[in-house]
Amino acid sequence: MGEPVAFRCVSCGREYEPWSVDYTCPRCGPRAGTLEVIYDYKSLGRRLTPASFAETRRPSLWRYEELLPTGVEHAVSLRAGWTPTYACRTLAAELGLSALWVKDDSLNPTASYKDRATAVAVAAARKLGREACSCASTGNAATSLAGFCASAGIPCHIFVPKDAPKPKVAQLIAFGALVFAVDGTYDQAFDLCSEASARFGWYNRSAAINPMNVEGKKTGALELWEQLEGKIPDYVLVPVGDGSVISGIAKGFSELVWLGLAERTPKVYGVQASGAAAIAHAFQRHLRGDPILPADEPAETLADSIKVGKPRDVVKAVRYVAATGGGFVTVEDEEILAAGQALPRRIGVFAEPAAAAAYAGLLSLLRSGVIPEGATAAVFITGSGLKDPEGVLRGLPGPTVIPPELQAVERALSQ
Amino acid sequence: MGEPVAFRCVSCGREYEPWSVDYTCPRCGPRAGTLEVIYDYKSLGRRLTPASFAETRRPSLWRYEELLPTGVEHAVSLRAGWTPTYACRTLAAELGLSALWVKDDSLNPTASYKDRATAVAVAAARKLGREACSCASTGNAATSLAGFCASAGIPCHIFVPKDAPKPKVAQLIAFGALVFAVDGTYDQAFDLCSEASARFGWYNRSAAINPMNVEGKKTGALELWEQLEGKIPDYVLVPVGDGSVISGIAKGFSELVWLGLAERTPKVYGVQASGAAAIAHAFQRHLRGDPILPADEPAETLADSIKVGKPRDVVKAVRYVAATGGGFVTVEDEEILAAGQALPRRIGVFAEPAAAAAYAGLLSLLRSGVIPEGATAAVFITGSGLKDPEGVLRGLPGPTVIPPELQAVERALSQ
Repeated sequence: MGEPVAFRCVSCGREYEPWSVDYTCPRCGPRAGTLEVIYDYKSLGRRLTPASFAETRRPSLWRYEELLPTGVEHAVSLRAGWTPTYACRTLAAELGLSALWVKDDSLNPTASYKDRATAVAVAAARKLGREACSCASTGNAATSLAGFCASAGIPCHIFVPKDAPKPKVAQLIAFGALVFAVDGTYDQAFDLCSEASARFGWYNRSAAINPMNVEGKKTGALELWEQLEGKIPDYVLVPVGDGSVISGIAKGFSELVWLGLAERTPKVYGVQASGAAAIAHAFQRHLRGDPILPADEPAETLADSIKVGKPRDVVKAVRYVAATGGGFVTVEDEEILAAGQALPRRIGVFAEPAAAAAYAGLLSLLRSGVIPEGATAAVFITGSGLKDPEGVLRGLPGPTVIPPELQAVERALSQ
Repeated sequence: MGEPVAFRCVSCGREYEPWSVDYTCPRCGPRAGTLEVIYDYKSLGRRLTPASFAETRRPSLWRYEELLPTGVEHAVSLRAGWTPTYACRTLAAELGLSALWVKDDSLNPTASYKDRATAVAVAAARKLGREACSCASTGNAATSLAGFCASAGIPCHIFVPKDAPKPKVAQLIAFGALVFAVDGTYDQAFDLCSEASARFGWYNRSAAINPMNVEGKKTGALELWEQLEGKIPDYVLVPVGDGSVISGIAKGFSELVWLGLAERTPKVYGVQASGAAAIAHAFQRHLRGDPILPADEPAETLADSIKVGKPRDVVKAVRYVAATGGGFVTVEDEEILAAGQALPRRIGVFAEPAAAAAYAGLLSLLRSGVIPEGATAAVFITGSGLKDPEGVLRGLPGPTVIPPELQAVERALSQ
């Protein structure tokens, strides 16, 4: 298993003994002071080869155990990761790309990319002997934690704002989580979750503040590299809400370079809805030379998983994306809707609107020439359209009604 | 790749040259004359070892290419099969089983077991040079075919009765299928699909009549055997509607025996809703010595995927299950609902009601003593609860509403 050598503050750079701090840098606080898990890349790089991971024969993210903070012996049964990567040849040719890959992370246990983070976070909870977990979120992260805690047989406490969508809350309850509907804002729910977790000893998996999240999320990059047999796409597109998924993916590619397993990273591009673009704006300010600071903006988009106004992982997301030479792009809701309808029709993958946004971002970057003709690109599908079918299918035409006669089929076909 | 030596009628036993017939035995007709695909098990048995399949390194059902009628070169990108098998230790102990495994087939591309059948059927369509596919169904089979046809880039024609559930039809349309809403019964839609497929040269994947379906569906059994490292559970529980899934699973285990890769099959048990139990009744008649005949009964259950009154694969299902020494059990809707709520809470798997029925069947067979204490059992989860969340979650209590204060959390916990 992996042996972290330090937990390092992403803002002040101070290093902490691994596991001596659970969440964020005490000096920089919970928003600026998120921690990075650091390994001895030099020593690991001498040992690991492209074949190292396949040899484990684990069809899950635990094939990268040596690059993870906890060992597979702490993992629960649910199989996170080792999701398929599809080569989309026809679509690539139409778009003028020399290759297009789609990584379908809707095929995780609770149907989202968040299962990668949860798999590692719940393993860490078990390693640390914590007997319960907690999380503030109404979305994929909460569902994921509830599912993994059910598999682990440990209690799960979820904090949501009182007006959270009923179907999502119902699914949390189905997984046996104790759901607190907080009569207040999302931020009040987030803070109450932190406070209650400290008071009752629950291991808090809330976005960004738990350094295990990015460790789990980096495995999507490692898999893409392995599944493409060492090829690194020129561009990688990732939907961005809180900033943790893209931080993980960027870190994964960077680690491959540090380990000597890849020569370069792809240019990683974050895609945000134009109505919820706090990190894209922070990135623009960073390019102008401003310091990277936590952001707080209004957020409005139909893509609920990336409808985030006060993202929790701004510093990592901006810094890590910049390190890959990538950037951010924003897309309109109409583009997200169109992308969400094109993906299932063209490649048979039914993505949630937030995930479709990544494909919309690809189209936008191709139109603007940022991604040149002949490039190679990969798109991360981070969640299933089954979680919000109505959001994806809005405005599609209905079926063709016919009497039960062959002639009616013929007539309908000739129209 | 596999080389079928014959397509054999399950009723009259007549053998046809492989690929000389697309669907059913011309003598016995579309309901009694479903075909079995036969291989040269003796010769394959000399060649195949338990390690043969792992060596392909394919994390999909194509690892069993040598036991499939078409080669992987005809497969589309979407990854069907190689779904996880979870060992449920705590639950097994509570139930008095010495082991309980759950195979989670909701982690297929369109979130159901039907993707196994579709993967092989669409590959067959490509092998045969058919340029379009068709299917009569409103459920998982249709969605699956629509998704795989999208991935293949070929047209898909779906026939549903006009009153089919809107969300399911919407998903078909999302995958780009041409959906004919037939102003008539399901049986009329089924017959019209057959007629139109013959007329226009579409490859018809409708339940049971296409022999590729069972070939795809048998891979779940092969995987369970491989993932359990050659262990064969004493009992295997499968939800039953049309009878194709259980026919496939029973055939898979039987083939392992014929190949010399396993010493015995498990006792395969089909689980039907007591309100939709046509195959269970046919099995009882078979035990009394009656001939196995197509059945047609009223069907009523909350588990829509197994709400089948006129099942299409009665003969295979009854014959294959009998050959394993298994049988059928029926469960009430309340048991299905309770099982659907227990599974996510206990093991973190969110199953659709039909899939939960298999777990309800296990509990019923344990209560009645058919499955003895200390036995080992496996349950197939054939579809995702995300396709019908309201069906699963009916009657669960809501969240605990609290003000944003730590004391309120304390109070709620102490209740």
